[in-house]
Amino acid sequence: MGKKVLLTGFDPFGGETVNPSWEAVKRLNGEVVEDVSIAAEQIPTVFHHSAAVLEKAIEKHKPDVVICVGQAGGRAHMTPERIAINIDDARIPDNEDREPIDEPIAEDGPAAYWSALPIKLIVKELRKNGIPASVSNSAGTFVCNHLFYQLMHRIDRTSANIRGGFIHIPFLPEQTVDKHEPSLSLETIVEGLRIAAVTSALHEKDIRETGGSLS
Amino acid sequence: MGKKVLLTGFDPFGGETVNPSWEAVKRLNGEVVEDVSIAAEQIPTVFHHSAAVLEKAIEKHKPDVVICVGQAGGRAHMTPERIAINIDDARIPDNEDREPIDEPIAEDGPAAYWSALPIKLIVKELRKNGIPASVSNSAGTFVCNHLFYQLMHRIDRTSANIRGGFIHIPFLPEQTVDKHEPSLSLETIVEGLRIAAVTSALHEKDIRETGGSLS
Amino acid sequence: MGKKVLLTGFDPFGGETVNPSWEAVKRLNGEVVEDVSIAAEQIPTVFHHSAAVLEKAIEKHKPDVVICVGQAGGRAHMTPERIAINIDDARIPDNEDREPIDEPIAEDGPAAYWSALPIKLIVKELRKNGIPASVSNSAGTFVCNHLFYQLMHRIDRTSANIRGGFIHIPFLPEQTVDKHEPSLSLETIVEGLRIAAVTSALHEKDIRETGGSLS
Amino acid sequence: MGKKVLLTGFDPFGGETVNPSWEAVKRLNGEVVEDVSIAAEQIPTVFHHSAAVLEKAIEKHKPDVVICVGQAGGRAHMTPERIAINIDDARIPDNEDREPIDEPIAEDGPAAYWSALPIKLIVKELRKNGIPASVSNSAGTFVCNHLFYQLMHRIDRTSANIRGGFIHIPFLPEQTVDKHEPSLSLETIVEGLRIAAVTSALHEKDIRETGGSLS
Repeated sequence: MGKKVLLTGFDPFGGETVNPSWEAVKRLNGEVVEDVSIAAEQIPTVFHHSAAVLEKAIEKHKPDVVICVGQAGGRAHMTPERIAINIDDARIPDNEDREPIDEPIAEDGPAAYWSALPIKLIVKELRKNGIPASVSNSAGTFVCNHLFYQLMHRIDRTSANIRGGFIHIPFLPEQTVDKHEPSLSLETIVEGLRIAAVTSALHEKDIRETGGSLS
Repeated sequence: MGKKVLLTGFDPFGGETVNPSWEAVKRLNGEVVEDVSIAAEQIPTVFHHSAAVLEKAIEKHKPDVVICVGQAGGRAHMTPERIAINIDDARIPDNEDREPIDEPIAEDGPAAYWSALPIKLIVKELRKNGIPASVSNSAGTFVCNHLFYQLMHRIDRTSANIRGGFIHIPFLPEQTVDKHEPSLSLETIVEGLRIAAVTSALHEKDIRETGGSLS
Repeated sequence: MGKKVLLTGFDPFGGETVNPSWEAVKRLNGEVVEDVSIAAEQIPTVFHHSAAVLEKAIEKHKPDVVICVGQAGGRAHMTPERIAINIDDARIPDNEDREPIDEPIAEDGPAAYWSALPIKLIVKELRKNGIPASVSNSAGTFVCNHLFYQLMHRIDRTSANIRGGFIHIPFLPEQTVDKHEPSLSLETIVEGLRIAAVTSALHEKDIRETGGSLS
Repeated sequence: MGKKVLLTGFDPFGGETVNPSWEAVKRLNGEVVEDVSIAAEQIPTVFHHSAAVLEKAIEKHKPDVVICVGQAGGRAHMTPERIAINIDDARIPDNEDREPIDEPIAEDGPAAYWSALPIKLIVKELRKNGIPASVSNSAGTFVCNHLFYQLMHRIDRTSANIRGGFIHIPFLPEQTVDKHEPSLSLETIVEGLRIAAVTSALHEKDIRETGGSLS
């Protein structure tokens, strides 16, 4: 039987009127590619509440793989994240005006969780398809990292047979018409997430390929 | 009778295997949009010889508007250029291994020519269509600026009834798979150049709208 | 008899409380280096009025060389400017709330003037002394370019035996404590302008060395 | 009795002829500031061997605080690191030509360790003194992160009464004369590390101040 991948995207935040993560994953909702079926759910850009909504989505879809997706304004590449860290440190308020500073996400959790996705293989497959991609070593300290950590913590706590991870994506071109920031088209991002979903579903093991960062 | 626009794109240079300018303009060759007909020609990335090839293309197509297009690796926006300057100063060799340093393009020419395209209106129309765009105040000192200057100098010398200008465009995504530079998809660039061609053909006068740069 | 160099710096603009150009040139006021004497004057960041103040400073000091200096927030290098262009296009208001858009600086002036400073030699000398430097091909379209153009236009009109030019400099570190922009220390900028002043006074001819830009 | 701070800096790597971290910390060697005495040691830019050299330096100096310092080419700020992660992933060879890919630093170690320095307070003090600073959420995956992780793992394993952390610093101006990267002067970096050392010695607790990152 085929694998099931749950993709999540956030609602807009920080003054933007769209969030490319939701725009992209909703277009993949219901797709079946290479026997991998994809479902998509929207998550609120809110500390903690985001995790509760994710929890329900996981219960509903019972996925083999969960890939949370978020906007990383300023990045030029699609970037699978390597690690989630146990801290909330908001630079701007979330969508319910919470602005935690240096608060642990889970009091009982470890400092960090590794992504369980084959992040190097995803980067390789994306590049092979002409899509700019690289590994990121920090998902920040806002709601994206929060949700990523909560996802991995939930899987760890429940010993669920789910592989989870997070991918940050650039702005859409329409978000950058008057700011000098990189962007990728919606078509490119959708195709990139399709590749990432299938690659993650079909490959439990990552490849050994350089993808490090000097600093 | 409808207007005729000649678009030109360069062949690849600087180690790249494609040049987004030629990839984009060749897709517009033969199109007729809003009674504006578009022709496209390829230009070699070679000082001086580029101008001779452009000259022949102008004689062949007898356009009302000429828009030369070139790759500006590192830029995030489509950028109509404001001004062409009378100097060649190569940082790398051109495609025939010439590397002029601080040589005037035309001994008898003025220091600079202004674009005759409605550059502010083009930027406005591109943004309205969700395409990142801004005015650039420097086309550099390589073959792009050379061709732009030669185009304007030729029009000036011959008092031809042609309006000319230059637009720089970002890398394609496939050129940036392993370098952290901005890109725009071919579809976005093609649509952007279509808008720029039609806008230039239909509007001789520019709008008065801020588009300056502090430095 | 020794040469005389007039350096000018601007007052703060755009919400900044200091302008590194004035902070730096005022420290060089009265210095005599290698028989080159340096005077410094402050110029208001105001279209046109800046030129009137510069005119008086030139009459007062009767310099052989005039180097106007301005802040280029975001640049990492000290950048001698290659060319001044005949246009005002303000992105923000000047210090008297004027915001000209696409207005010529001098109705009767050419499109552009070249710097008369040995810009390649200045870059070479700065780098030899460990100071980050490169040639810039655009001084923007705000008051910096305005003053640069006015300086060259004044010299051209009066056939004065003065060599003129413009150097843009980065932010000071204290201006970037909470924004991710490059800076250079005041000591480095002062030393760099000292080198530029002496080099400009002692060398009328520039060297032939690559310093171009692809776009 | 006064506190003792050990600062470490690396030897040059990646084709550079100097490493600003060693240039800076060696100038602080032997200083006593506000009853805080500072020692400095050089560390080789080599995976694992760096940790052995650090171990000896700790045994020799018996410090209360250890701050390892490293070059982060491309950054504009001095950046106290928040977290060290348990992975080596080299993008270039280290100084003994080792290039580990996705290897854990310590088989028995946790995924990550938090800095024990008051990183927000350090940033605040640096900014108060006009020095560009911000918190970083990733020390990369090269030798800098390796040493940082090894330091924290050693303290954890031995229950030593030492507080440790890592600070990344920009290039020196002389390293950027012909590349467009930010830099800070040696004087600024030395002053910044002096402030960081004293602040870390005198304050065990951090302040609660925003310093997060969206992504």
